[in-house]
Amino acid sequence: MSGKKELKRIDLKTIKDPDFLKELSYKELDVLSDDIRKEIIDKVSINGGHLAANLGVVESTIALCRVFDFRKDKLIFDVGHQCYTYKILTGRSLERLRKSDGVSGFQKINESLYDHFECGHSSTSISAAKGMAVARDLNHENYDVVAYIGDASIANGLAFEGLNSLADGNNKVIIVFNDNDMSITKPVGGLAKSFRKLSNSTLYRRSKNAYSRFMKKTKFGRWVLSWTGSIKNWLKRHLMSLNIFDNMGLAYIGPIDGHDIKSLEKALLKAKKYDRSSIIHIKTIKGKGFKYSENDDSGIWHGVGSFDKNTGKVSDDPSLISWSEVYAKNVIEEMGSHSEAVLLVAATGVGSALQNAFELYPNRCYDVGIAEEHEMTMSGGLAISGKHPIISIYSTFLQRAFDELSHDIARMNLTATVLIDRAGLVGEDGNTHQGIYDESFLMATPNVYVAMASRQSEAQSLLSLSFENKGVLAIRFPRSKVKPNNDKENLSFGSWKKELDGHKTAIVSVGPITLDLKEKLVELNKNVALYNAIFQKPMDEELIDHELLKFDRIIIYDAYAIENGFANTLAAKLISKQYKGEVIIKAIPDVFVDTGSINEQLDRYGLSVSQITELL
Amino acid sequence: MSGKKELKRIDLKTIKDPDFLKELSYKELDVLSDDIRKEIIDKVSINGGHLAANLGVVESTIALCRVFDFRKDKLIFDVGHQCYTYKILTGRSLERLRKSDGVSGFQKINESLYDHFECGHSSTSISAAKGMAVARDLNHENYDVVAYIGDASIANGLAFEGLNSLADGNNKVIIVFNDNDMSITKPVGGLAKSFRKLSNSTLYRRSKNAYSRFMKKTKFGRWVLSWTGSIKNWLKRHLMSLNIFDNMGLAYIGPIDGHDIKSLEKALLKAKKYDRSSIIHIKTIKGKGFKYSENDDSGIWHGVGSFDKNTGKVSDDPSLISWSEVYAKNVIEEMGSHSEAVLLVAATGVGSALQNAFELYPNRCYDVGIAEEHEMTMSGGLAISGKHPIISIYSTFLQRAFDELSHDIARMNLTATVLIDRAGLVGEDGNTHQGIYDESFLMATPNVYVAMASRQSEAQSLLSLSFENKGVLAIRFPRSKVKPNNDKENLSFGSWKKELDGHKTAIVSVGPITLDLKEKLVELNKNVALYNAIFQKPMDEELIDHELLKFDRIIIYDAYAIENGFANTLAAKLISKQYKGEVIIKAIPDVFVDTGSINEQLDRYGLSVSQITELL
Repeated sequence: MSGKKELKRIDLKTIKDPDFLKELSYKELDVLSDDIRKEIIDKVSINGGHLAANLGVVESTIALCRVFDFRKDKLIFDVGHQCYTYKILTGRSLERLRKSDGVSGFQKINESLYDHFECGHSSTSISAAKGMAVARDLNHENYDVVAYIGDASIANGLAFEGLNSLADGNNKVIIVFNDNDMSITKPVGGLAKSFRKLSNSTLYRRSKNAYSRFMKKTKFGRWVLSWTGSIKNWLKRHLMSLNIFDNMGLAYIGPIDGHDIKSLEKALLKAKKYDRSSIIHIKTIKGKGFKYSENDDSGIWHGVGSFDKNTGKVSDDPSLISWSEVYAKNVIEEMGSHSEAVLLVAATGVGSALQNAFELYPNRCYDVGIAEEHEMTMSGGLAISGKHPIISIYSTFLQRAFDELSHDIARMNLTATVLIDRAGLVGEDGNTHQGIYDESFLMATPNVYVAMASRQSEAQSLLSLSFENKGVLAIRFPRSKVKPNNDKENLSFGSWKKELDGHKTAIVSVGPITLDLKEKLVELNKNVALYNAIFQKPMDEELIDHELLKFDRIIIYDAYAIENGFANTLAAKLISKQYKGEVIIKAIPDVFVDTGSINEQLDRYGLSVSQITELL
Repeated sequence: MSGKKELKRIDLKTIKDPDFLKELSYKELDVLSDDIRKEIIDKVSINGGHLAANLGVVESTIALCRVFDFRKDKLIFDVGHQCYTYKILTGRSLERLRKSDGVSGFQKINESLYDHFECGHSSTSISAAKGMAVARDLNHENYDVVAYIGDASIANGLAFEGLNSLADGNNKVIIVFNDNDMSITKPVGGLAKSFRKLSNSTLYRRSKNAYSRFMKKTKFGRWVLSWTGSIKNWLKRHLMSLNIFDNMGLAYIGPIDGHDIKSLEKALLKAKKYDRSSIIHIKTIKGKGFKYSENDDSGIWHGVGSFDKNTGKVSDDPSLISWSEVYAKNVIEEMGSHSEAVLLVAATGVGSALQNAFELYPNRCYDVGIAEEHEMTMSGGLAISGKHPIISIYSTFLQRAFDELSHDIARMNLTATVLIDRAGLVGEDGNTHQGIYDESFLMATPNVYVAMASRQSEAQSLLSLSFENKGVLAIRFPRSKVKPNNDKENLSFGSWKKELDGHKTAIVSVGPITLDLKEKLVELNKNVALYNAIFQKPMDEELIDHELLKFDRIIIYDAYAIENGFANTLAAKLISKQYKGEVIIKAIPDVFVDTGSINEQLDRYGLSVSQITELL
């Protein structure tokens, strides 16, 4: 545009593979970085997705693709939601990002030869990389395995186990440790403090130089300095790099400016030359290049729906609220009336709309970071000491804490509430994040009870009930939205509700979709009974015995979980009770459910309301 | 006995609480330690139990009980199997250790007011202690919370999450870190190396003193020394204690001789005075005081059955072998014929009798330590790189790796074998170790298949089949023993076996108990069909459709898992197939199963063979 020497500018649409990167100057790479950022902001503003993390990793992804050849070298993005730049550089358009006909929001083996493993849940990359490195070395092959992991993910137990394991044997892995001092919301724990210490290590360098300058001033001093050479080396070895990673036997490189491609390349080349595993500590700005996300320290720009890229206004129907918001409001109420209530989240406080609870009750709210196991066992310690833990967690992440829920809470018959957000199909996040397995696991854990409200008044009552009953009440709720409503009611523990009277056929339905089904049944004027199975465990034995068994046909409809949960358990109960009628099970089959909208996913398995009414 | 001043000797039977400890001299405490060791050896030789760990912690338990008052202070033994000295000191006899009418082998809340939490699975103590400390501080109460954890347990991800969390907030916890350089078998990973470094830190002290002595020789030197005071402090702070714990914000005390009560007391008192969380690193000898266990580095004295305390010979029926041994033999065969096979264990190699595999194929066998999550995700990395992981794990510990099995292996439809040892009721270890929940979780995970052999020829064939079929084959086997047998057979994937022909009633049975049932049915001359459901998933649809549905009554008999697994799933399948006969489900109910022998536990729930034949 100006009179300066023209910089080569890449049309992102023409990219087939990352080879072109090697021909660009650092200035041209900076232009490319800007263009990639604009593309990410543009496509995420349309399709929704993970914004802030992707804006932070543009330069480091470029540097990785210049130093390594990921046709043979392996790259695992931990969690995987920060792979948009990588998708662009490996010839994948973000045009239909997260749609069933477009690219996934995560690395996908079947999508590209450049994707070598699939993440989704946090902190798996180092262990997977170790497995790949072992396989490589057993085969006497020669390539690099790189794990790219953020500061929130590295503080999880699994990542620690992976790091710890790298010191055993000599299977080289390169870890790029992306430290944005942010994670989803904020870094927690001792490790985060330790990272900050690392970044300040220039302080040491300065002191050391002052000492050295002083000593050099006299002959004696120079002699002392040379005599104490071994101490100096000792000092250097211990002070410079005896950080947590060095303690675990890794070579530490950093901290590096994660937006400076030249420095990043230098560090990567150094790690490539090492014959042992190393960790490259890079500092980045999450959300870089988009003023709204750059200035955000709440975490709302972590994962977003569509938004206006000029105003930063998120498209939202103001007449609806999420189930997360419904429960967040109830949590605040219960914390107000129960001083023994303590709220715990594992880095998902913003996702579950719990910021207000943290503001109102700062002493009784704990964000433990991405540490679901710790969240659960710490809750056991709280519960045995007379506190009532409210454990907020996403269904898919609860999978990581089942052992602790069983062993450290339920086994001792302690009392707690587990609020399970994103239960059921989750839509665009795809098969790594489906919330459809927890119900089955929960049904199979003694002293754990399971419930799902179909309306807000039930939700409020369920949370209250969890304070009145011994044991764990696991309350599931989906990703969908509802019209705000302040009705109140008092449920009785374990009771179901008859929503519609009917003849011959009864439907036993779970969750909010029950009300959509009710509406449709009324509209179609079907003479069918509809039961709202608010509690999946315990079941309403009285209602089953006195009402349900009389029907000729029973349809068990659970659109929020796999068959092998409430549906099969109720069916087994019916047959144990010598029920001789017809039973139809409509729940999610034994599969991993790929991306698409929630409605598309329901349709795929015959679970939409109209597919249910077609059975009648 | 000699003419020396008589030492006060305590009759262990008279102990009611630990108060008497304060009146004893250190010499008398040493005598007490010896007596406690003898008692532990004696009672474990009769009842079986965890020997080596208990012999290692005698002095440190005494020191803890002298410094703290565990009527108000809290003590959590991680894993909990090292609490025998504590039981004795708090007035509990080991006479009926691990029997249903005696004391548990673990801490039990209902057993004593001195037990404040229950462990069993590893690495929960720090998180639980944090929860208790938070509760204490919210209540403005004043007592100490102590977590006692070994070097194997502290290397697990959950312990790391707990440690990391201690730096957040100011909820003081004291950690006694018992480092015996042994763990169950051997310490693994970078952390273990780092611990060894810590123990050598006197080297630093010596260098520092030499430097200081040299500098003090001249006036100038003394001046330099004083001027560099800040550097010295820096050095001290960083060099002395910038270990992994310091990195995480904990005060580090140690290493301390874990058999020297006086030093232990001093360290504990120091920690008690601190206003922040601390870790006391003690070095102990696992198995101390019993020559066979002291010289054992294989881990066979970790947990034992009854034995002769004079000869160290373990009581064993030489005509029987364990199912672990059956599968260990098969593993060696398969590793011989499949060069892509890689064996992984998580600290249970000895328990699963896999030492020979490690000796024969050292490059293809990995003990990752108590890191089940890492074991699973590393297997995902191996599998995606063309290796075939054989993942050996105990049923109860598999609970901690379900998310990784699902997310990092099954979701990508990778191929692996999971060998699940101690599936079913485990007897004396009690409710923390029951292997009865995994089947349900496995049935609910897509791309995972589940099988259990009733005879050794089936076991051998199942392991072979796992190499021939895509996906994960989870092979469960119990703690019981069998007569060695070298028969071979070729199972077909998913097929069941008819063991007995019969009329009207069919029993569908799972696992080795099927053969006992068969014998009993023949003996009683019952005209009942018996099906051996070798595969719990997939089920034998053809057999179900063409044979099973014809019977008037079907008994589903799974003595190795809770109802909410194979039993309910088969029942749901029968009702979906419009089966109109009677169905009886005999499986373990939805409870946590307390200690007792396996036969007592089966009887408790109507699951013994004779209780099944009584139904006929």
